[in-house]
Parts: sequence; C-alpha cells; structure tokens
Amino acid sequence: MRTRKDAWRLGVVLFEDFELLDVCGPVEMFALAERRFDISLIGPQAGPVRSAQGPSLMADLGYGEAGTVDIVLVPGGIGTRRLVEDEGFIGWLAGWASRGEGPYVTSVCTGAGVLARAGLLNGYPATSNKFAFDWARSQSDQVQWVRSARWVANGRRWTSSGISAGIDMALALIAELYGDEMASRVATAAEYVWNRDPTVDPFAGVTLAADH
Amino acid sequence: MRTRKDAWRLGVVLFEDFELLDVCGPVEMFALAERRFDISLIGPQAGPVRSAQGPSLMADLGYGEAGTVDIVLVPGGIGTRRLVEDEGFIGWLAGWASRGEGPYVTSVCTGAGVLARAGLLNGYPATSNKFAFDWARSQSDQVQWVRSARWVANGRRWTSSGISAGIDMALALIAELYGDEMASRVATAAEYVWNRDPTVDPFAGVTLAADH
Repeated sequence: MRTRKDAWRLGVVLFEDFELLDVCGPVEMFALAERRFDISLIGPQAGPVRSAQGPSLMADLGYGEAGTVDIVLVPGGIGTRRLVEDEGFIGWLAGWASRGEGPYVTSVCTGAGVLARAGLLNGYPATSNKFAFDWARSQSDQVQWVRSARWVANGRRWTSSGISAGIDMALALIAELYGDEMASRVATAAEYVWNRDPTVDPFAGVTLAADH
Repeated sequence: MRTRKDAWRLGVVLFEDFELLDVCGPVEMFALAERRFDISLIGPQAGPVRSAQGPSLMADLGYGEAGTVDIVLVPGGIGTRRLVEDEGFIGWLAGWASRGEGPYVTSVCTGAGVLARAGLLNGYPATSNKFAFDWARSQSDQVQWVRSARWVANGRRWTSSGISAGIDMALALIAELYGDEMASRVATAAEYVWNRDPTVDPFAGVTLAADH
C-alpha cells in the first residue's frame, strides 16, 4: 500500500470508438471504493463520445482543459488504430501523463498500444489484449511486451489484458492504494469474482474462431 | 436455442442514478455478438442520463418514443428506490414490456425490484442483488424470490444478481438466442471468465462489512 490520500484524481481518456467495458468496468470499481477516487472523463471536447459498441459516454472536459491527475487510464477499442496516428493527441497524452509528481499511467486492452506509441511504456514490461497483441507490440519496440499476464504492474505503469481484465487490474490498484480489504469489499459489492493473481491469464493461449 | 432472428431489438432502460456496470456489462456482451442485437438506450428523454457512479450515458430516445422491442433490460442502482415510486414510469414500463409478442423482460441487480413493482414478475421466480435483496423482495409478494442464484431464467423472464452477474446472464441469453458457441466466442473476445451455471452464486451467503 502506498501513501493514502483522501481521494486520488482519476482521469479516464475517451476517444471515438473506445471500448465501452474498458471504461465502465474499472470506473464502476473505483466508484464503489467509498468516495476515494475523483473520476473525470476526458474526451476530445466536453460532451458525448461514441463507443465502438454504440452508446456514448459524456466527457466532462476536453483534452486541452484536463488538469493534473494522479491516475491516467487509457481504454482500448477499435478507435485506438486511428488514435495512434493522431500526432496532436499522442503529444498531448505524453505531456499530460508526465505532469506533476508523475501519475499512475494505466491502460486496458489495446490502450497499451496508445501508451506505447506515446513513449509512456519505454523500458517497462506491459501487456495488452490477447487478440490484438501483435498490433499493440508493433507500436513500440522500447517496451518489454508480456504475452501471458492478466495485468502487469511495474512501478507506476499498469497495463491489463483485454476488456474484462481491466476490472481485475482496477481492483488490484485499489488494493495498492487503499489496501486489500477495501478492494475485497468493492469486489463483493459488485458481486464480482476477482482474479487477484496477475499471472493467471486464461486467454493467453486461446485463439478466436476464424469467422469472428 | 429459440427462433433465430437476424437481429434482436434490445431496449435498455436508463434512469437517474442507474448502476453503470449493470448497463455496460451486458451491452458490451450483446454488442460483441456480431451485430445480432440492435441496441437502444431509453431514458426519461433523449440525452445524457447520469449514473450513480457519476458518468452519464446518452439515451437514444425518451420513454414515450420507445417502439416495440424484443428484449427489455432494466438495470439496478440506487435510483431504483425513487423509480418504483414514480407511477407514471411504472405504468409506462408495464405497458411497454408487454407489447408485441411479449419481449424477453430482463433485469440486473435491483432492476428486479422495478420489474416486480410493475407486476412484470408476477408468478415467476426471480433473483436480485444480494445486498439489497430484502428491498427487492419488498416490491412484490407475487414473485417467487430466489435468494441463491447467479441468475434466474424462466420463460421470457430473466433476472440476475448484483452488478457483475448481469454479464453472466447476458451471455446465457446470447446462448439461448444464438447458441452456446456464439456466447463462448463473445466471452473469449471480452477475455471474460463466464460463470455458465445460474445456480453457482458466490455471493448468496456473503455479508458486506458493516462500515460499508
């Protein structure tokens, strides 16, 4: 457990075609943690941002308005393929995620590819979605890519596997910041069977049917 | 497996202080099912509806504009406590969920209390959130309440336990409508360890710490 704070400021990055559960799984867990996280959704501008699944979440503020946060979370989703080519965005993310005392920089799914492209994982071990792993890896050769891991935590760089894995990582981060008992209470309140072991990756060796 | 359709029309009911993951967990699963579900979010009116966790989802249309759907999904969340007292809403829901050939009527978490109040579970077995079970049960004595169940499926009435349980129920409904292989592919794509057995309820006997 690190330094306790009254509340950690969590900034979640939204972009067109983000993966809905990559955001809402972790946000649900952080929000259940008894008001210990101040959560902001940050998009291209304040207002609705459409997920790859259809539904739109409302961004609280635009990238340019985002203040310093303690935790950065970048989701995955098919929109990451365009996002890594957006030099303005990548430059903003690289700067914003390095401000202040240096926030926790976290990702779910192919969000790791975005962090990698922004240089934020240079020298760190990291993982990503199991079914888009080669794409993530292609974003940087400065990262020690780990194929089999539910999530990888190294200092203040935390990256998770695909979609649902973000929930397990979020609970582990809650445990890191506020202790295991808090994280267990959150998982129970969500009636979620928490995979507590980052090395247990049920999907590392799995392939999806070719017709998917 | 029931009748195959090209796409089932899924209407998800939003209201102030709905539980974010109750909506986004199932919606993620249905959306991963290879375009077999047409998903609409239906709120008090089109536009943003705030979740109990803070983030707002955009409703596609208002209650009064909602057409006939094949599947109704009512999430839980602390907002259900006010919702059951809203006679206009309860009357609308009772009518809308009985239209056409009679849709699947489903709930996550304390959404079962809302369905019960609307009379939509009369004569059916049903379950709800394990930590608000007595509240749900108090909404109707015409329901056969089942305390230990991950979800309960009976004909076209499907109700799940709290929050995360909605994901397991959604996968089971995908299996019912399109077969087990489709549901397995969806779970794998989401890197989600699916609890396939509705009778396995890890939280039925658990209590939350008193300080929660």
